[in-house]
Amino acid sequence: MKPNSDLLDLLLEVQLLDRIPRVGYLLSGVSDPESVSEHTWHVAFLVWVLGESIPEVDRLHSLEIAMVHDLAELRTGDLPRTASRYLPDEAKETAEAAAIEEILAPLPARMRRLWKEYQVGESTEARLVKACDKLQMMLKVQLYESQGNDGVRRFWDNPENFPDFGFPLIERLFTELRQRRTG
Amino acid sequence: MKPNSDLLDLLLEVQLLDRIPRVGYLLSGVSDPESVSEHTWHVAFLVWVLGESIPEVDRLHSLEIAMVHDLAELRTGDLPRTASRYLPDEAKETAEAAAIEEILAPLPARMRRLWKEYQVGESTEARLVKACDKLQMMLKVQLYESQGNDGVRRFWDNPENFPDFGFPLIERLFTELRQRRTG
Amino acid sequence: MKPNSDLLDLLLEVQLLDRIPRVGYLLSGVSDPESVSEHTWHVAFLVWVLGESIPEVDRLHSLEIAMVHDLAELRTGDLPRTASRYLPDEAKETAEAAAIEEILAPLPARMRRLWKEYQVGESTEARLVKACDKLQMMLKVQLYESQGNDGVRRFWDNPENFPDFGFPLIERLFTELRQRRTG
Amino acid sequence: MKPNSDLLDLLLEVQLLDRIPRVGYLLSGVSDPESVSEHTWHVAFLVWVLGESIPEVDRLHSLEIAMVHDLAELRTGDLPRTASRYLPDEAKETAEAAAIEEILAPLPARMRRLWKEYQVGESTEARLVKACDKLQMMLKVQLYESQGNDGVRRFWDNPENFPDFGFPLIERLFTELRQRRTG
Amino acid sequence: MKPNSDLLDLLLEVQLLDRIPRVGYLLSGVSDPESVSEHTWHVAFLVWVLGESIPEVDRLHSLEIAMVHDLAELRTGDLPRTASRYLPDEAKETAEAAAIEEILAPLPARMRRLWKEYQVGESTEARLVKACDKLQMMLKVQLYESQGNDGVRRFWDNPENFPDFGFPLIERLFTELRQRRTG
Amino acid sequence: MKPNSDLLDLLLEVQLLDRIPRVGYLLSGVSDPESVSEHTWHVAFLVWVLGESIPEVDRLHSLEIAMVHDLAELRTGDLPRTASRYLPDEAKETAEAAAIEEILAPLPARMRRLWKEYQVGESTEARLVKACDKLQMMLKVQLYESQGNDGVRRFWDNPENFPDFGFPLIERLFTELRQRRTG
Repeated sequence: MKPNSDLLDLLLEVQLLDRIPRVGYLLSGVSDPESVSEHTWHVAFLVWVLGESIPEVDRLHSLEIAMVHDLAELRTGDLPRTASRYLPDEAKETAEAAAIEEILAPLPARMRRLWKEYQVGESTEARLVKACDKLQMMLKVQLYESQGNDGVRRFWDNPENFPDFGFPLIERLFTELRQRRTG
Repeated sequence: MKPNSDLLDLLLEVQLLDRIPRVGYLLSGVSDPESVSEHTWHVAFLVWVLGESIPEVDRLHSLEIAMVHDLAELRTGDLPRTASRYLPDEAKETAEAAAIEEILAPLPARMRRLWKEYQVGESTEARLVKACDKLQMMLKVQLYESQGNDGVRRFWDNPENFPDFGFPLIERLFTELRQRRTG
Repeated sequence: MKPNSDLLDLLLEVQLLDRIPRVGYLLSGVSDPESVSEHTWHVAFLVWVLGESIPEVDRLHSLEIAMVHDLAELRTGDLPRTASRYLPDEAKETAEAAAIEEILAPLPARMRRLWKEYQVGESTEARLVKACDKLQMMLKVQLYESQGNDGVRRFWDNPENFPDFGFPLIERLFTELRQRRTG
Repeated sequence: MKPNSDLLDLLLEVQLLDRIPRVGYLLSGVSDPESVSEHTWHVAFLVWVLGESIPEVDRLHSLEIAMVHDLAELRTGDLPRTASRYLPDEAKETAEAAAIEEILAPLPARMRRLWKEYQVGESTEARLVKACDKLQMMLKVQLYESQGNDGVRRFWDNPENFPDFGFPLIERLFTELRQRRTG
Repeated sequence: MKPNSDLLDLLLEVQLLDRIPRVGYLLSGVSDPESVSEHTWHVAFLVWVLGESIPEVDRLHSLEIAMVHDLAELRTGDLPRTASRYLPDEAKETAEAAAIEEILAPLPARMRRLWKEYQVGESTEARLVKACDKLQMMLKVQLYESQGNDGVRRFWDNPENFPDFGFPLIERLFTELRQRRTG
Repeated sequence: MKPNSDLLDLLLEVQLLDRIPRVGYLLSGVSDPESVSEHTWHVAFLVWVLGESIPEVDRLHSLEIAMVHDLAELRTGDLPRTASRYLPDEAKETAEAAAIEEILAPLPARMRRLWKEYQVGESTEARLVKACDKLQMMLKVQLYESQGNDGVRRFWDNPENFPDFGFPLIERLFTELRQRRTG
């Protein structure tokens, strides 16, 4: 596998993102779980809907970050959370950064830099995408659990799954989601 | 089913879009075909990548249209192309318009109107999304066919599957895609 | 898609009915749910078994109605219940009637008329098929629920899912089914 | 597992027939192949359509035989063709006969005897069902092959897959099917 | 199907074992259940791990028995437990013995005899494989149940699913497994 | 995730290996591809069958190596080949070594060291497992391709997929496999 040499190569490769299952759900016993494409779509949708109510967010910029935030998984796969535990510091980020460079090679440098901005996670827009990444995960957990998949229950016990990244709207939605579950 | 009464209702319902298979591929023998979520993600990605090179496109506006363009299928399902043949004129549009109103009820009217703009198909941004909707379909057909799914061959024979909507970039990509296939 | 021009066209098209999932179960989180072929088989089986104990039923006639009752879905797909809410009055019936005419074109008019009889729902035989259509749905719901699919629970709360169409035997079976569930 | 003691037990057990895959297709590499429910539905449909044109056939009687012809597989599974090669003479029939007795225990003896009639295969109606059992298999093979499943090609090479059981209509359809394939 | 005539035939046929689902789980409503390949791997793994702590076991010999213990299912399929109830005495064993002879035909007689040793079930090594065969079944039941598949609950009620075959280590593991379940 | 603290923890975790798909096949368009459990079983089977004919191999020792060779994937997932390209040198091995230590924590150090022996790849037994790892991959490719999955064709073009590791028997089988394909 090499850097994509033209736009059509890139567009065809991206179609493969549907084939990468979200491994955390798979290991929790969800059969036919969400793909990385589906996850990415839902994150972008959340960013769009919630960004509308957060004046300080540049909405186009946040949507652009959502577009690329998991694209490296086309070449690295969806590493389960446990994998990070065993990889040397920074190894995952370095690998993903290199993968993004090669996948998005036919695009302008500006677009490839969006992934880095997401990793750093300091800009308002990057923080919104990071918050939506987790909110989406828990919305899907709620759906799977309401449909009888008990294996995802443990997601509710990990406080790291509910980060608001400083957005009161996200904090409120996490609270409402927890209330609906126990309600 | 009723209009969504708050934001969380909406966000949870949208998670179900993964469960709607793209019926045209299903009837062509693709097992485990693309979902409507996956299709929508790919259309948004194309709009983002190609919009960058088309100066007259308002990129945020076109991404917003892509977000909602197939969302009515949450409540109407993905009607196969043959269904339209049997439904009275306008019935499909009327149904989808009503579905969109109820699904997106918690959002501002501005956001709900994007779907109508897509249907009318006159603005530059709506035309770009419509072109990407078909381009994505043929990119996926190319992938399925290269993986041995011969049932999708007939997609190449329908001239309506290759509309450029006046964008030379789209026309060029359709040409390259056909060349790659026969090449 | 056009009217089938000979018997073999018809027979091959009918094989595709396996590829149409029952959308209501899909949206309830059942992975790999019943196909329309499977549903139709179970309805025919119920009609056969129960018709034996209902003297006023012409058993061949009721089986014939069961054969065609969902065949239009080959070309319209399985519209989710919510879709009917948005479609103009009669649009669904008109579409299905047209689809049936074209699918069954190689068969005698007598056979194509059976679908209309089902829609009208007045003859004893049509009423029996309609009752078995719902009874089968709830038998499958019972199975899915007993296997841990909690997403189908809501089917029990809708009184329209338990119509006896005037047959005491059907009424009795619905009662027994409810008792077994809570029992 | 025991004889079903009441009608509801029987009706619930029959729902499980969807879970038995047709093993011959599975071993040929068809992913998500036809279930025994789907096969049975298609055989019944063929018997209904073709019986209309064969005056000597009692149509109700042939449909009744189609209903039960593979029902024993609820308890024995779909034995691959190779299994028969290893089982002692008559063992498969004896097992299936016993299974049918227990599955259909709540039904009148007349209905349970239909399976035996199918096995003997002498009555006009039993012969029609046997012919449709193979015709359906080859229709599905044609579909799978046209969709790119090359693993089913070997089905065309086995002359035992094309028995007409003395019906010219079946013979004609097998001929047309072969012509369409090579055509 | 015939005896394999060379080693490559055998090696290719064995790849098909992945396509045989474990029917008991399928009928319990587990979608996408364990294949016979997966079951066999887990039995071999258990034999390897537990054999290490049981001095009287010849570890290589027990692993060899695990390798072949379900291989006949390549040609007979995975007969559901209910099937044995209907088959004449010894019919299943006779069929499987014949299947093993033909599948493993290119291997030395010593290797083909391992299956017979398993069936007889008297040697220490055969008893260990038989115990692990059931222990693996219940470990998987525990997993499926913890993931929300309620249809497998009945496995816990059958005392025949917990045979220790005289090994205190197996007895202890069954006890611990039951304790973990009831928590 | 932590080191397994007792044997039952280990045995239950290993059941999850069925849920890890072999990513290379998934990205090649094989729907429902081999799991890591299935792959491991086939490698062990090959080691067993081929080891019989290679006198210098300690057969128990080679089977033990096969048992553990991919077990780290329980916690790291099946990294696609492309991932290694982006990870810093040794990062994958270091991660897998750590994962193995924690997964197999309840077992004696001797058993945990087998994975290291596989990685080093110098002992006769480790070389046999490495050769069988690739031979199994190509046997499965041959099966998928013969069943119509054209997406796996590219596996034949990579010379690294046919290493004999110095065993003439493996070399012969690769040659026969290629001949059968083109033959």
